[in-house]
Amino acid sequence: MGGNIIGERFSALSFGESHGRCVGIVVDGCPAGLPLSESDIQGQLDKRKPGQSAVTTQRKEEDKVEILSGVFNGLTTGAPICMLIWNKDQDSRSYEAIKHIPRPGHADYPALVKYGGFADYRGSGRFSGRLTATLVMAGALAQKLLAHTLGINTTAYTVEIGGIKAQQITEEGIANRYGNDVRCPDAEAAEKMRDAILQARKDGDSLGGIVECVATGLPVGLGEPIFASLESDLSKALFSIPAVKGIEFGSGFEGSKRRGSENNDVYYIEDNKIVTKTNNSGGILGGLSTGMPIKLRVAFKPAASIAKTQETLDITTHELTDLVVPGRHDPCVVPRAPPIVECVVAMVLADHALRYGLIPPVLKRQ
Amino acid sequence: MGGNIIGERFSALSFGESHGRCVGIVVDGCPAGLPLSESDIQGQLDKRKPGQSAVTTQRKEEDKVEILSGVFNGLTTGAPICMLIWNKDQDSRSYEAIKHIPRPGHADYPALVKYGGFADYRGSGRFSGRLTATLVMAGALAQKLLAHTLGINTTAYTVEIGGIKAQQITEEGIANRYGNDVRCPDAEAAEKMRDAILQARKDGDSLGGIVECVATGLPVGLGEPIFASLESDLSKALFSIPAVKGIEFGSGFEGSKRRGSENNDVYYIEDNKIVTKTNNSGGILGGLSTGMPIKLRVAFKPAASIAKTQETLDITTHELTDLVVPGRHDPCVVPRAPPIVECVVAMVLADHALRYGLIPPVLKRQ
Amino acid sequence: MGGNIIGERFSALSFGESHGRCVGIVVDGCPAGLPLSESDIQGQLDKRKPGQSAVTTQRKEEDKVEILSGVFNGLTTGAPICMLIWNKDQDSRSYEAIKHIPRPGHADYPALVKYGGFADYRGSGRFSGRLTATLVMAGALAQKLLAHTLGINTTAYTVEIGGIKAQQITEEGIANRYGNDVRCPDAEAAEKMRDAILQARKDGDSLGGIVECVATGLPVGLGEPIFASLESDLSKALFSIPAVKGIEFGSGFEGSKRRGSENNDVYYIEDNKIVTKTNNSGGILGGLSTGMPIKLRVAFKPAASIAKTQETLDITTHELTDLVVPGRHDPCVVPRAPPIVECVVAMVLADHALRYGLIPPVLKRQ
Amino acid sequence: MGGNIIGERFSALSFGESHGRCVGIVVDGCPAGLPLSESDIQGQLDKRKPGQSAVTTQRKEEDKVEILSGVFNGLTTGAPICMLIWNKDQDSRSYEAIKHIPRPGHADYPALVKYGGFADYRGSGRFSGRLTATLVMAGALAQKLLAHTLGINTTAYTVEIGGIKAQQITEEGIANRYGNDVRCPDAEAAEKMRDAILQARKDGDSLGGIVECVATGLPVGLGEPIFASLESDLSKALFSIPAVKGIEFGSGFEGSKRRGSENNDVYYIEDNKIVTKTNNSGGILGGLSTGMPIKLRVAFKPAASIAKTQETLDITTHELTDLVVPGRHDPCVVPRAPPIVECVVAMVLADHALRYGLIPPVLKRQ
Repeated sequence: MGGNIIGERFSALSFGESHGRCVGIVVDGCPAGLPLSESDIQGQLDKRKPGQSAVTTQRKEEDKVEILSGVFNGLTTGAPICMLIWNKDQDSRSYEAIKHIPRPGHADYPALVKYGGFADYRGSGRFSGRLTATLVMAGALAQKLLAHTLGINTTAYTVEIGGIKAQQITEEGIANRYGNDVRCPDAEAAEKMRDAILQARKDGDSLGGIVECVATGLPVGLGEPIFASLESDLSKALFSIPAVKGIEFGSGFEGSKRRGSENNDVYYIEDNKIVTKTNNSGGILGGLSTGMPIKLRVAFKPAASIAKTQETLDITTHELTDLVVPGRHDPCVVPRAPPIVECVVAMVLADHALRYGLIPPVLKRQ
Repeated sequence: MGGNIIGERFSALSFGESHGRCVGIVVDGCPAGLPLSESDIQGQLDKRKPGQSAVTTQRKEEDKVEILSGVFNGLTTGAPICMLIWNKDQDSRSYEAIKHIPRPGHADYPALVKYGGFADYRGSGRFSGRLTATLVMAGALAQKLLAHTLGINTTAYTVEIGGIKAQQITEEGIANRYGNDVRCPDAEAAEKMRDAILQARKDGDSLGGIVECVATGLPVGLGEPIFASLESDLSKALFSIPAVKGIEFGSGFEGSKRRGSENNDVYYIEDNKIVTKTNNSGGILGGLSTGMPIKLRVAFKPAASIAKTQETLDITTHELTDLVVPGRHDPCVVPRAPPIVECVVAMVLADHALRYGLIPPVLKRQ
Repeated sequence: MGGNIIGERFSALSFGESHGRCVGIVVDGCPAGLPLSESDIQGQLDKRKPGQSAVTTQRKEEDKVEILSGVFNGLTTGAPICMLIWNKDQDSRSYEAIKHIPRPGHADYPALVKYGGFADYRGSGRFSGRLTATLVMAGALAQKLLAHTLGINTTAYTVEIGGIKAQQITEEGIANRYGNDVRCPDAEAAEKMRDAILQARKDGDSLGGIVECVATGLPVGLGEPIFASLESDLSKALFSIPAVKGIEFGSGFEGSKRRGSENNDVYYIEDNKIVTKTNNSGGILGGLSTGMPIKLRVAFKPAASIAKTQETLDITTHELTDLVVPGRHDPCVVPRAPPIVECVVAMVLADHALRYGLIPPVLKRQ
Repeated sequence: MGGNIIGERFSALSFGESHGRCVGIVVDGCPAGLPLSESDIQGQLDKRKPGQSAVTTQRKEEDKVEILSGVFNGLTTGAPICMLIWNKDQDSRSYEAIKHIPRPGHADYPALVKYGGFADYRGSGRFSGRLTATLVMAGALAQKLLAHTLGINTTAYTVEIGGIKAQQITEEGIANRYGNDVRCPDAEAAEKMRDAILQARKDGDSLGGIVECVATGLPVGLGEPIFASLESDLSKALFSIPAVKGIEFGSGFEGSKRRGSENNDVYYIEDNKIVTKTNNSGGILGGLSTGMPIKLRVAFKPAASIAKTQETLDITTHELTDLVVPGRHDPCVVPRAPPIVECVVAMVLADHALRYGLIPPVLKRQ
């Protein structure tokens, strides 16, 4: 299969370009009988939308989802579900000028070589952050399916921007994460992150950061070793989000500095359920869910598009040239990332729940 | 496909158990005409073998590969290549006693639930580090193919153990990494890492660490966006190595603290080739290779098997119980990990080179 | 992967329903640089369209293709190509009445059970012959790709309807097959077939028949043994056409009555090329193309929808009931089948040409 | 995936060569908890074995299966099951002489081109009928799984050889099919078929024929439209058997001559179950099982290896040459085909039963 398809049982095929007619995704494998309307998807798309605060690009995108197939009388039918967003007219002229002038940190140069100059380069084409809207569409469907059938929920939030870390992450803070512009559970840190982003924008620069995601309500034993472990499939899917450069589960990189006696999670019984005192494994052992919450962190690099003039090459002439990146861009993509991350995690968990037989191909009529 | 298969065009199916008759792997998709003998594979297996120094388990495993199919007159035929290692008689009795007593940090508990008690639990069964020998067999084949056809090489080495970091990593140090027990390019740091491992062993404890891998000789444009980006497929494969809990490319987690102007790699011309001054992207932009070396780091948790007595549960009685993990184990798996990591990276690159059409299905006769 | 996806390297995912908003297909894997416009696809769709002669249904369908992605400046980009046809308003009321009354010979009953009553049953939903329009869209693209790059052509025509066989099949007859209503290369037999269909319609009944397909310009060695032999993959794809109940290659069923000395094709040299005197193998040996034309025949059952009153069951009450099938239907689907068959064959050959590395991922700019 | 892998949920990867060290297959996806021993597999292998009667080759093959993985304490574990047969020393010298002289009707010529001369040509290598032993191993496992969990049985038998047809096919005849050398339910016809084979052998020639297969005990709704319909996946798998050149379901080619009113199967109630009066659909409508027995027929061409001298080409010199095919061969492969056909059908049904969620990943402990 090509690189535009993911998932064994909850399979998704993404299509469309940033400045083309639309961006869309077709999901094959969603069980029949799930209540579904466009508003179920729109909620998550709205959280991803730019132009909602001072810390994101001021570009307006309406991003209204249409479901073209697979739903009948308000319920999924078991047939493929095609969802898309029509693009509004974009001003693509500025990209023509930099067709052969690769922007540092963007996919421009390898994409130009790979596709022999045939790719749609306008607004980064297939490599645009705009394609994350397709991940959100498929993932919002997965979230609905998981919540409806198994009570599994995925929740993502910002824990670091520009080196500023959230100091405390409480249940309540997580619940209120959309109360601030950067979607951080720590309101105080959120304020500092916001200021840092505004300062970076003023400097014509950009920031990166870290998003954490938690999945709760998991059964024990989800995941397929060896090559389709939960960690394997989650990381594969998460690296499809542009700007992601690192992933860790549980204690992750920090845990690699510890001793085994500190890092091993000790089992005990709570409410007649087998649980662990700590969760350094991030809810995954041997690639399988332990029943504890899955916990992972995703590192986003600072946005490649910056307002500052940068030096780069004209690859036809091999001459150095100054570049001002066109378009209006996010000084930091992290605030818009949590809905994307939690949707991508849901897609993978839905796929595995179907592989493991936890969700039947036809849901009970209610 | 099940979790035991990976790769689209260089596909591998792993089989076997730690204390069963054998561990093996079948590779489908290797082009015809590649010179191949068992010694090509054995070299890498030998580097992974335990019992080679004071820092690894003293368990002896002969690990002699046999090629059962797909090679004729010393050359691959284009047919599936089955490779296996016969297991020597193992003492499995100690595992019987802890069948229902999950070892902290191991897959025991979720595996018991997932497979309903039918899985072969002896020596961790399918979840044993022993299965990494199958990754090495398939990966050593991939390394041979990549070197033979495209001049691509993958090289991994230890950069951190128990929090002790390699201070300088030079070409020469990398070339001599097998000159020390921990396979670190910095001989001085290697000494300290070695001492730390021996101390941990003495304490009945274990250490984790970080392995870095570099792939050189890459063309521009390898990788398939969106879901089969190089980062996606490399991380999927690398998380199939037990104990891996984090992965980062280029500047990774550290890069998420930087500004865009610092992190973007600037293009220039060197020897008539387009290169970048820095390589914070780790040789990958938009999921595609940039032509710069791929650089990634893999975090290993401290080994879950420790000599110290640990508290755990008997999951049949739900009673707390003291556990002494049976068997002889590595106090740190990191020294044996570099050959595994470089083999796994090679598998993924071979798969993508075939997908991208860079390696033909039949090699030129030489 | 679900049942709605086919192909390894030229992958297609079909979506949409007969009476839903649209029917469409996304192709992933088409190389970059192929000239493509909607008219390339429309030509084949027009040949499949109903309402073109007395022998097909008089239902009018406009069937105008729209390409939503993957084409830029008149050339494919290497990104997924989404093609769809918007459905016109359909009268679906009559299907409501027979929701629980399965039509004999249709998928109604097993579909009702499989999808728990959630499937869109209007106009047969996903099981409608209308979905063959999606096969034609993907296949017309494949035909363009094959002709443009390798000079491979696929051509299908009617050879039997209602037991009336084409007596002579000449190159010229094949070229003129669209000169008659039933798309048969033998104009005289075509006349009889046409009469038989009109008589069947008058009788409130339907006919079946056989379509033959020839693919020319093939290289030697296309196909992947064992499970992805050309015969395996062609038959898999062709059975996705509703009403197909049999497939044979070369001498097929008739050849099974012969002796080996009669059926073996003898090699000789013609124009410095290795060819065979006969082509009983249908151009395929060991699942691989021999370089001779591929020749296959597809048996279509008589259309299940007939005007005559039929006895069937109400599956809720288990009572026998009389049924008059609603809608306007083809008394014989065979005349509309040749463009579908040749498109489906092209899809499979394109997939294998890409797997075999005969078509590069980026075409030469012309 | 390569051509050596089949199945989504019950996946099998075949390896080995006719004159190599072994032939084998690895099955990934068999649920945990199925009682399994080598004798379960051996029974079917024995039925396929040559040298059992005057109508087959007198070559002796021991064909003793070994299970290398995936079974523990007599039960499957959920891990991949590797099964193989070690080849006995073969005399391969005669094949050296005809390396460049393709045998008519064999894969020799396209295989030589496809694999650039690197393939193992001895005894037809990967294209040998010997590889059907791997299909039998995987399929016998599938038969066990289907019978154990769902009560599904697959049964194949000879219905035609050399144009001689079985006249009556009764339940009793089918049960006793192994009572005659050609495995035909009609003992009288079997006698004539046997004579025809012996006559063909005497003439230095070979015969083809037709095998029918019936699957009973099926639930309603098995199969995944559109591209993974039961007919699609059954035909794909069955065409992996060498010498198969045609497949039909239910009334098949003959049905294409009928009218719809004759061919449609009429529903009624029997024993409180929805059934049809006839079974012209072969138990499949819209690609889904109807609950009636699946019925299909497979056409085998006459064996390509004949004792008679044949004319062919030396493809290096392009000179015509006389060829006497080396080795000892079956004058008709049909008598050995029924166990292969029923095993292949079982593989596909097991795969679909798992996809449809009818068999859980872990079986109940008994």
